[in-house]
Amino acid sequence: MLRLRVVLVNPKNEGNVGAVARAMKNFGADELVLVDPCPIGDDAVRRAMHGADLLERAKTFRSLEAALKGSDLVAGTTGIATRSEKKFLRIALPPDAFAERVAAMDGTLALLFGREDYGLFDDELRRCDLLVSIPASPRYPILNVSHAAAICLYELYARKPANRTRKAAGREKEILFAAFGDLLRTSEYPSHKRGRTMIMFRRMVGRAVPSKWEFHALMGVLTRATKALVRNERK
Amino acid sequence: MLRLRVVLVNPKNEGNVGAVARAMKNFGADELVLVDPCPIGDDAVRRAMHGADLLERAKTFRSLEAALKGSDLVAGTTGIATRSEKKFLRIALPPDAFAERVAAMDGTLALLFGREDYGLFDDELRRCDLLVSIPASPRYPILNVSHAAAICLYELYARKPANRTRKAAGREKEILFAAFGDLLRTSEYPSHKRGRTMIMFRRMVGRAVPSKWEFHALMGVLTRATKALVRNERK
Repeated sequence: MLRLRVVLVNPKNEGNVGAVARAMKNFGADELVLVDPCPIGDDAVRRAMHGADLLERAKTFRSLEAALKGSDLVAGTTGIATRSEKKFLRIALPPDAFAERVAAMDGTLALLFGREDYGLFDDELRRCDLLVSIPASPRYPILNVSHAAAICLYELYARKPANRTRKAAGREKEILFAAFGDLLRTSEYPSHKRGRTMIMFRRMVGRAVPSKWEFHALMGVLTRATKALVRNERK
Repeated sequence: MLRLRVVLVNPKNEGNVGAVARAMKNFGADELVLVDPCPIGDDAVRRAMHGADLLERAKTFRSLEAALKGSDLVAGTTGIATRSEKKFLRIALPPDAFAERVAAMDGTLALLFGREDYGLFDDELRRCDLLVSIPASPRYPILNVSHAAAICLYELYARKPANRTRKAAGREKEILFAAFGDLLRTSEYPSHKRGRTMIMFRRMVGRAVPSKWEFHALMGVLTRATKALVRNERK
């Protein structure tokens, strides 16, 4: 199992520290570590909301080395990811690829966020096993540190549980397509257009990924309209 | 091309508004709209950093309806996406699926974020063509509004418009929904179910993002079935 340790290196704004704690609570992360932080006071607690307990339990260290003790993989975040291979220090993964890479990992992952103004220094980046950078506008690529944390934590969380909504199964969808075909026939929809209209419907349903409930509601509409047409014809 | 309008509904903390403006600047979004906001002052400007120009240019409206004028698709965000299929109002897409769905869209997408405490109200959610919800810890799923915005904007930024299919515009979709309503009436679909079945259809179409061609094909199916029912009744 992956154990995540969020490490804030030399944060200068306590509000940001609180906001990171909240985002951690939102995404089920538990261990916050601070390296040489600003004083943590009321503003941090206020911004942390229900994540205030993470602030209280946060460990503080004077050096990065001490904060990384016991971690199996060290990932650093950087706002200035260059594609140039010469500046090898800063070649970085986007957060989704990063999350995919570490999802199956066993052990402790330390995820580092740097100072609000200067980020992580080169010697700190050199300590990282891999780098993460969030793709952003070249005109202003520097995110607020708690936004960067929220995005990385979101990606890490998203790799775990899948969407739980029950989806209409393949067989049910075939029944839906048949009901749509019945409506086309009973309403005397031009036969030369039926094929492509059926395909259009299939594509749209495919993209909409209906839930079971939506499947049943839509079936109800189609079969009722078809039955009304058949009934009226018999009159 | 997709034009994004970020709409903050009744924000109560100016710092959050500033933080959203910064995230917008980070991800190349340009149009910020405020509905009945708190006073916007120094704290908002400070948090906006290089996004302060977005704050200055933000339009303010008294009503949501006015803020949505001219938008072709309305997406609402909710922190309480229930998995229950009966509470149909709140079936929502995760941000990555949402971004994928709208990437190829032409026109204006309004992306709504609700109050810090109560989110979007039910009547506001009903106005939405689709819902977005960020998967998060069931123990504390409510994100800070600027975090939610940053995550959604990050996902939208990460998707490049893939294909250029023309999408049905907002007005055309309203015509489609009206035609669906006509079919429900003429086929004597139970009146107590009509409201939620209409919303189900709106949501499904919202998620499917139909092309102009699909719009016309679907219109053809619905109007033909309705006409056939009316014609048969007259016999």
